[in-house]
Amino acid sequence: MQAPSRQCRRANLPGPNAREAASMYGTAVAIFLVILVAALQGSAPPESPFPYHIPLDPEGVLELSWNVSYVRKDVHFQLLVHGLQAGVLFGMSDRGELQGADLVVLWTDGGSAYFADAWSDQKGQIHLDAQQDYQLLQAQGTPDGLSLLFKRSFATCDPQDYLIEDGTVHLVYGILEEPFRSLEAINTSGLQTGLQRVQLLKAEVRTPAMPPDTHTMEIRAPDVLIPGQETTYWCYITELPPGFSRHHIIMYEAVITEGNEALVHHMEVFQCAAEFETFPLFSGPCDSKMKPERLNYCRHVLAAWALGAKAFYYPEEAGVAFGGPGSSRYLRLEVHYHNPLKIQGRRDSSGIRLHYTATLRRFNAGIMELGLVYTPVMAIPPHETAFMLTGYCTDKCTQLALPPSGIRIFASQLHTHLTGRKVVTVLARDGQEREIVNRDNHYSPHFQEIRMLKKMVSVYPGDVLVTSCTYNTEDRKLATVGGFGILEEMCVNYIHYYPQTELELCKSAVDAGFLQKYFHLVNRFDSEGVCTCPQASVPQQFASVPWNSFNRDVLKALYDFAPISMHCNKSSAIRFQGEWDLQPLPKILSTLEEPTPQCSASQAQSPSGPTRVSIGRGRG
Amino acid sequence: MQAPSRQCRRANLPGPNAREAASMYGTAVAIFLVILVAALQGSAPPESPFPYHIPLDPEGVLELSWNVSYVRKDVHFQLLVHGLQAGVLFGMSDRGELQGADLVVLWTDGGSAYFADAWSDQKGQIHLDAQQDYQLLQAQGTPDGLSLLFKRSFATCDPQDYLIEDGTVHLVYGILEEPFRSLEAINTSGLQTGLQRVQLLKAEVRTPAMPPDTHTMEIRAPDVLIPGQETTYWCYITELPPGFSRHHIIMYEAVITEGNEALVHHMEVFQCAAEFETFPLFSGPCDSKMKPERLNYCRHVLAAWALGAKAFYYPEEAGVAFGGPGSSRYLRLEVHYHNPLKIQGRRDSSGIRLHYTATLRRFNAGIMELGLVYTPVMAIPPHETAFMLTGYCTDKCTQLALPPSGIRIFASQLHTHLTGRKVVTVLARDGQEREIVNRDNHYSPHFQEIRMLKKMVSVYPGDVLVTSCTYNTEDRKLATVGGFGILEEMCVNYIHYYPQTELELCKSAVDAGFLQKYFHLVNRFDSEGVCTCPQASVPQQFASVPWNSFNRDVLKALYDFAPISMHCNKSSAIRFQGEWDLQPLPKILSTLEEPTPQCSASQAQSPSGPTRVSIGRGRG
Repeated sequence: MQAPSRQCRRANLPGPNAREAASMYGTAVAIFLVILVAALQGSAPPESPFPYHIPLDPEGVLELSWNVSYVRKDVHFQLLVHGLQAGVLFGMSDRGELQGADLVVLWTDGGSAYFADAWSDQKGQIHLDAQQDYQLLQAQGTPDGLSLLFKRSFATCDPQDYLIEDGTVHLVYGILEEPFRSLEAINTSGLQTGLQRVQLLKAEVRTPAMPPDTHTMEIRAPDVLIPGQETTYWCYITELPPGFSRHHIIMYEAVITEGNEALVHHMEVFQCAAEFETFPLFSGPCDSKMKPERLNYCRHVLAAWALGAKAFYYPEEAGVAFGGPGSSRYLRLEVHYHNPLKIQGRRDSSGIRLHYTATLRRFNAGIMELGLVYTPVMAIPPHETAFMLTGYCTDKCTQLALPPSGIRIFASQLHTHLTGRKVVTVLARDGQEREIVNRDNHYSPHFQEIRMLKKMVSVYPGDVLVTSCTYNTEDRKLATVGGFGILEEMCVNYIHYYPQTELELCKSAVDAGFLQKYFHLVNRFDSEGVCTCPQASVPQQFASVPWNSFNRDVLKALYDFAPISMHCNKSSAIRFQGEWDLQPLPKILSTLEEPTPQCSASQAQSPSGPTRVSIGRGRG
Repeated sequence: MQAPSRQCRRANLPGPNAREAASMYGTAVAIFLVILVAALQGSAPPESPFPYHIPLDPEGVLELSWNVSYVRKDVHFQLLVHGLQAGVLFGMSDRGELQGADLVVLWTDGGSAYFADAWSDQKGQIHLDAQQDYQLLQAQGTPDGLSLLFKRSFATCDPQDYLIEDGTVHLVYGILEEPFRSLEAINTSGLQTGLQRVQLLKAEVRTPAMPPDTHTMEIRAPDVLIPGQETTYWCYITELPPGFSRHHIIMYEAVITEGNEALVHHMEVFQCAAEFETFPLFSGPCDSKMKPERLNYCRHVLAAWALGAKAFYYPEEAGVAFGGPGSSRYLRLEVHYHNPLKIQGRRDSSGIRLHYTATLRRFNAGIMELGLVYTPVMAIPPHETAFMLTGYCTDKCTQLALPPSGIRIFASQLHTHLTGRKVVTVLARDGQEREIVNRDNHYSPHFQEIRMLKKMVSVYPGDVLVTSCTYNTEDRKLATVGGFGILEEMCVNYIHYYPQTELELCKSAVDAGFLQKYFHLVNRFDSEGVCTCPQASVPQQFASVPWNSFNRDVLKALYDFAPISMHCNKSSAIRFQGEWDLQPLPKILSTLEEPTPQCSASQAQSPSGPTRVSIGRGRG
């Protein structure tokens, strides 16, 4: 147990010697902390350690650790607050807004201190939840700061509460710098606030043993001076040792330079294309004019890490082949530095440590691309809040390309450009949806990590994989067409599976002829605004559609009805043999029922109002 | 308090004298009843009397009384069971099915008796609710049978529970004729079951005082022999006394011949058109070939009653004018006899008693027709489970036809033909939805009563009234077009309001020219199947549309987009002056938020399993 004075010093609050001179306010806050710690530090310890850990703010004032119980369907949080001032907000919201958020609030009115389950309305004002679903288990002073331990069920019966589900969770936080007379007096708009994206419900995958001949190789940034700007993608080319033979990568993990934990947002290692003998070496921002053109051919993902992700272990029967003949010796490391405080002069050597073995495992792991072809025929009208596009991997393609024993998907990386808001892939068999492969209802293009699936998904010849992306184009004036550009859109699920097959791409797009029928139809209803002559490009045609509810609804109806063109490809250029144009849309006769989340009525165990953590007496 | 023996006799169970000879089964059931009554009859009496009353089954074995508390948001039910056998089911379901129903079950396993909140799955099997939301308050033997008193909140937190809301509620019942070893052993498919439609949440309207010069007039069937068939609409023409001067109807009520309470389903009194000097007298089935053609001009509703409805009081400042010059002396009574057991030889003189006064009230009450014009341009594709059509009363029409002080709607009668499933009218002002005029999410074309609104709705010049109907055409092979025929459809809300204005009809339909563009478009996508030549009628064109998701979605998009043709009429033939064709659809920029029903967590007060009502010991 720490002496109160030491905690106060750590918390940057006036120590006992300074107290007599302190203002009443300062005193009250100090008392708040001291008594809070004294009152609760004897409570029960956490039931299990916290395997997951993430800094919430760029300065590292708030650190979150958590664990998940899929049996009890709850999450235990440990929030470590360095230098507590007058309180803290923490919670979750749909996309990281501080309005309409589900929150826990620790605050003081200058005398007493309180902990409560609350929510913020659309104006940011905070209200007490009718039902208290965050349960405070412990508040304890530690040498590192105040540690708050609390738990929350995935689903509560309170309509104001966030439903904790698979995929991205937008955590939000706020710092209270002064006491508030009541919870309702707090408005998030006046506070220092922020958000952090994380996958809270991580897969509980058994860690396979590493064979004795496991070696490691670190692909790290070469002592980079992090630019003093909010966003930097750093590109660094390195090469495998000469004569490096064929190995299996069986695990990889992030190596973060100490002190840069809040700056390194995500990192990926790509292998360059084997077609080219050599690649120019390079270290610099990926958008630099100095970056050699050829580096665009270094796009085959070997490893990917994002904030909050732990070590990535391949299933013990599979590994990713690299090295040896037929594979490029060149690797590209990409590091995304997120530096909103524009800190200058920080150096970084973060990267990814590959664990590999020469004892090849039974299966090669592969990556397959599902979703939409990168083509402008798939477009999103402007001013849409939730427009969905769907790409298919048809039964005809899986019948041709998958082995009779099927493949097993063990991980997935979802991908869209800037307007993507949700992504889901569903497996269908015999016209019936059977299983969700991966779903993210709070998907963010700024948080694209490879996620282990909670349960491997087997796909057999004849199965159908349906990938749907939902986009928000509220702030766009023209249609957003499919394509490679950052202002164009994609809908992709990179599935990680074994055994590796020749099938690299199983994607679709609407038949181009039917889209021309659509443009004719638009012209019939409105004045002849869309050029349907052969020289007009599809992006030009979409740009001249006069958008209204009819043209939008009919485009949606077209995508739900018209035949598709399939890319059932061995690589991005080579198709499997067969007829792939004017294919019928897969018929899905029965869909998976949305499970009603079983909410646990925690009001039975919890208080109906704020927990009064201590009673201060105004002056010490 | 009744002696047990007397209750048993009343309940058609063996009396004490017969007991010794009774089978073990009979004995157990008898004990079940006796002990049940003994165990619970000391419980609390109902908190208030039951203003509403309805027989549930055609034989009158089950009678339901109820009251509503809008403050506590709950309903108290009193279920009277004549001749209890081994138990009873009672509950509610979406449209009166015994599958997927929310139920209370009173049953015996031969020994003990139980009361429980339960639900039936899609196969009719009964399961215990995780949460017990029906609370048994009393079970009492009365001279008339067993009386069960229980209550239920409008909304519970249990996803298996029915949400009690405004509009029609489909009550369901079932008779248990033998003991079941457990609740799960009961399947509704093997039972005698049925349904009864009722408006549970009736308006609590203050009853205005009747003036001293109130007279009554009964419009009753002339001792009709009820036909021994399931459905009969009886038509009877009668006339007002010669020289009957102008009066105000200020109240009306049903007069049901004793014993026929379960047979008389609904009744309406219509006034004939003033254009005709005389009408032939008639008494017979409305579909009789003998019915004079001219009776089709007797369609102006004066009064309407349906099963479960109480007396209808006009607001004290308004009455319906009848009698005097310019109004027909002829009235038509229509009685719907619902006789599923095909009872023969029953005679009936039911009808409606009008209460009227010569002291005319301040305002004449009027009826206005909102919704869709009766025209085939508004059509529903086949195989739809919930296709919505919408009719508008535009700002332009209300601007022209309503007085500056507006009108007040106090009652509403919703109307569709056979495929109607939901009806709602919403008031919008300045592009914003403001208020629901009337809504029925469980609307049935077999239960069209005039309903008092819970709150009068004021409509001012410039307001918009949007009436939407949802149809189910799952069992139809061709499109269902709008029209007068019973196999065609309507979407109408007859609103009752004051002061009466010249505006009798405020309805819309899609512009006919835009519908032709739709047929052209269908031809463009499919083969040229729809004749778009001038001689083809719209019903013929709809009949030749090859229905698929695209043609359906585009029709929907057309109805949501295309300009409308307005009927803003003084009578069905005379329009207000103005341009009413090619009118823009009213723009609704913000819609009313669906209120999240506040469910009360009744598990705090209620048991988590069945209430064991008594413990039988096998033999008495």
